[in-house]
Amino acid sequence: MSALSDLLAYQRQTEALAQVMGRLGWDQETVMPPGAGAQRGEEMAALEAVLHARRSDPRIAELLALAEPGTAAEAAQLRLIAREHARTVRIPADLATELARVTSMAQGVWALARADDDIDAFLPTLAHVLRLKRVEAEALADGGDLYDALIDDYEPGMTAAELGALFDRMRPRLVDLRARIREAGRAPLALSGHFPRDVQLALSREIALAFGYDLNTGRIDLAVHPFSSGSGADVRITTRVDETDPLGCLYSTIHEVGHAGYEQNIAPDYALSVLGRGVSMGVHESQSRIYENQLARSAPFTGWLYGRMRELFGDIGVESAEAFHAAVNNVSSGHIRTEADEVHYNLHIMLRFDLERALIAGDLEVEDLEAAWNDRFAADFGVTVDRPRNGMLQDVHWSAGLFGYFPTYSLGNVYAGVLHEALRADLPDLDDSLAKGDPSPATAWLSERLQRFGSLREPAKTIEHAAARKVSETALLDYLDAKFGAIYGI
Amino acid sequence: MSALSDLLAYQRQTEALAQVMGRLGWDQETVMPPGAGAQRGEEMAALEAVLHARRSDPRIAELLALAEPGTAAEAAQLRLIAREHARTVRIPADLATELARVTSMAQGVWALARADDDIDAFLPTLAHVLRLKRVEAEALADGGDLYDALIDDYEPGMTAAELGALFDRMRPRLVDLRARIREAGRAPLALSGHFPRDVQLALSREIALAFGYDLNTGRIDLAVHPFSSGSGADVRITTRVDETDPLGCLYSTIHEVGHAGYEQNIAPDYALSVLGRGVSMGVHESQSRIYENQLARSAPFTGWLYGRMRELFGDIGVESAEAFHAAVNNVSSGHIRTEADEVHYNLHIMLRFDLERALIAGDLEVEDLEAAWNDRFAADFGVTVDRPRNGMLQDVHWSAGLFGYFPTYSLGNVYAGVLHEALRADLPDLDDSLAKGDPSPATAWLSERLQRFGSLREPAKTIEHAAARKVSETALLDYLDAKFGAIYGI
Repeated sequence: MSALSDLLAYQRQTEALAQVMGRLGWDQETVMPPGAGAQRGEEMAALEAVLHARRSDPRIAELLALAEPGTAAEAAQLRLIAREHARTVRIPADLATELARVTSMAQGVWALARADDDIDAFLPTLAHVLRLKRVEAEALADGGDLYDALIDDYEPGMTAAELGALFDRMRPRLVDLRARIREAGRAPLALSGHFPRDVQLALSREIALAFGYDLNTGRIDLAVHPFSSGSGADVRITTRVDETDPLGCLYSTIHEVGHAGYEQNIAPDYALSVLGRGVSMGVHESQSRIYENQLARSAPFTGWLYGRMRELFGDIGVESAEAFHAAVNNVSSGHIRTEADEVHYNLHIMLRFDLERALIAGDLEVEDLEAAWNDRFAADFGVTVDRPRNGMLQDVHWSAGLFGYFPTYSLGNVYAGVLHEALRADLPDLDDSLAKGDPSPATAWLSERLQRFGSLREPAKTIEHAAARKVSETALLDYLDAKFGAIYGI
Repeated sequence: MSALSDLLAYQRQTEALAQVMGRLGWDQETVMPPGAGAQRGEEMAALEAVLHARRSDPRIAELLALAEPGTAAEAAQLRLIAREHARTVRIPADLATELARVTSMAQGVWALARADDDIDAFLPTLAHVLRLKRVEAEALADGGDLYDALIDDYEPGMTAAELGALFDRMRPRLVDLRARIREAGRAPLALSGHFPRDVQLALSREIALAFGYDLNTGRIDLAVHPFSSGSGADVRITTRVDETDPLGCLYSTIHEVGHAGYEQNIAPDYALSVLGRGVSMGVHESQSRIYENQLARSAPFTGWLYGRMRELFGDIGVESAEAFHAAVNNVSSGHIRTEADEVHYNLHIMLRFDLERALIAGDLEVEDLEAAWNDRFAADFGVTVDRPRNGMLQDVHWSAGLFGYFPTYSLGNVYAGVLHEALRADLPDLDDSLAKGDPSPATAWLSERLQRFGSLREPAKTIEHAAARKVSETALLDYLDAKFGAIYGI
């Protein structure tokens, strides 16, 4: 055995255990008995201790020094293993274990607090998580910026300064677009009708399959917050159903199919290696967003969907494909990020980016977070937060310790804009397929150009390789101007 | 920190990881995507490698040498940790990992082979598992009997010689009872009617709760083969539904509630320790069997159930509580162990005990297993095996590597007989409660006298402590004679 093959075999077991950790998360959100939360916290902490010990094992450094890569894929694996090892050795094992245990339980505390609109019930737990995350960030940052150190976990190489500059460039055009939409004074369009749960689930399943989701290596369950989980041969998604709002179920499903498609389409050779998972949260989100927005919210696809929904649900309260398209793309400054339209979505992210950056920097205390959130929301959205679940209790992320994660959503939108521009140039007849409910030319393009490579290239390089152009926010902003200009006649 | 507290903290993490392993098994049998089998095998192998390394860690021996127990519970923990350590160090890590991987995949191979009635598709895999199990048994036996070494995993301290002697004592009375039942010449009674799936599931849930199953720390799902899984705060059961046969769903559920009740009722102080799980498969089976048979198949309980089923299903094809009781306890020499009545059940076990003992000893090859099974079945049951799924392909156990497990089912029946004798003496009014569908005096007795102690005492001592009498097969055989004597008028 060579050092290379020893190292890759060792890493393969680590990846398998990481998949087990992911499955525990899936289980917790979908099927775990309500009283099992504390025990689950201990289970995840014990497994995190194992993963931490493996990733920080000194033998990795020894094998890395000796290993000689023969291919680009092997070189990429060594780079990623080295990166993970370097990050892990900075974090004390006790801290890693404690973070796993506390964040597992904190998600349960958050869910109850959110259901009760009770911020006080959540603050001590949030303070505990934040304290641990700051200790972790200090260990990772090694004197550098704390928040940068956390971002790096989700988007390797990205910095708060770069994101801040990106958001500063995006904000004026988004605010301008929103102002013009408001001036158009169009009354909001919404569906009405009866949308039985089973029919919604059947239609979302039909569309998931059209977008390439493979049920042989996946399954669809219900969860409060839809998510995708797992890599390789076991990639599960969840969705939600509201019998008054079929679009929530459908578009959540398509969004998660974008994430899952990325994982399912990675080259089988990469399975259970460091290459066999999406390279960053931003690139991941680019797939979910392009499936959901640029493809499934396009006029030709919504034209097909309008007909299909009329077949399944009868009268849905809108009288034309055009009105349905406008309803699917209705712009309004609502409270909830996950329900936000494409114009407002990034403004939700900018709010969270600034607040969590201040929390990590120590410039904002958790006791002051609600006021800071509500003030900022009123300023940015022109709407008052009416209750905590519509404000700072709406997202699970902070309870789960995911500080630095939110900005990758906007980065995903930017990446999706770039990919969409390139994809449209390559596929001039795409609208003909979309108008038949068939997104497969686009999903095949993404699979071939991006998804199959997994983590082979660094995040921005992954996008640039696929799109054969530099990453820039202008593609997204131009797309939004054109799309909403047409819908709102502005 | 003392050696004792260090050791118990270390063991607590091991127990948490063992719970994770159990959850992977649950997931595999209930929700895993069909194409995920090979990856799951690698995941379980990686986790088994972790468990093996922890259980065989030399630090355990060092800490054991230093640890001073202060209580009987601590002494019992040290005894069990030492036992697990001694067993694990005998098994090479590679073998443990390979066994986890191969048995995980073999269960999928078996399931397909069984569905196709295709023994040839299963034999190579069975031979592979058997080969590995024999290597494991040789490592464990250290010159002793191979099959004894395997039994010891499921029923510590038990031997094939002791089981063989027990079965030799049981067989004549069971064969005699069966002969007398046959001579009675009673036509078999069976239910008929329409038994909708949802109503079956609702009723089985109602009865599960009556038997004390706690859904706050449990859940009920469907699986091809019902099972119970997990300890502490996450104890799940599965059941099955056949719309032509409601008794299968109901009694499977009650059986699994017996297993789950044992786990759920262990003292919370013992959670995630070696004491916090059932002490042996035989004692476990005693709980499932006493719930299912001595309690739920008793005349007063079936009297209540008859009325409840008529309320829910209308006409069920039998005209009196007495006829329903006879139908629930119908004696017939069918092919399937899990559907066997109380008279035939132990004969199914004796067949498997002799065959698997011969396989492990090398006296029987897998190529000859089908013929051996079919010959023995014809001799013992007077019935020809019509297809492999009704013969040697019916049970998952051998594909899962569970050689030495089958005899613990009969041991469980014997233990249940002893417990039932004691419980009846202590609860003279039990029939009044059972006649109202309320088994709680009996389940409370079992919880208080046996279940709460978990693994504190060795298996036979656990029964003897609870029943305040020696273990003997006569209690079971006397109970069977009396019960079936009354039903068949013999």
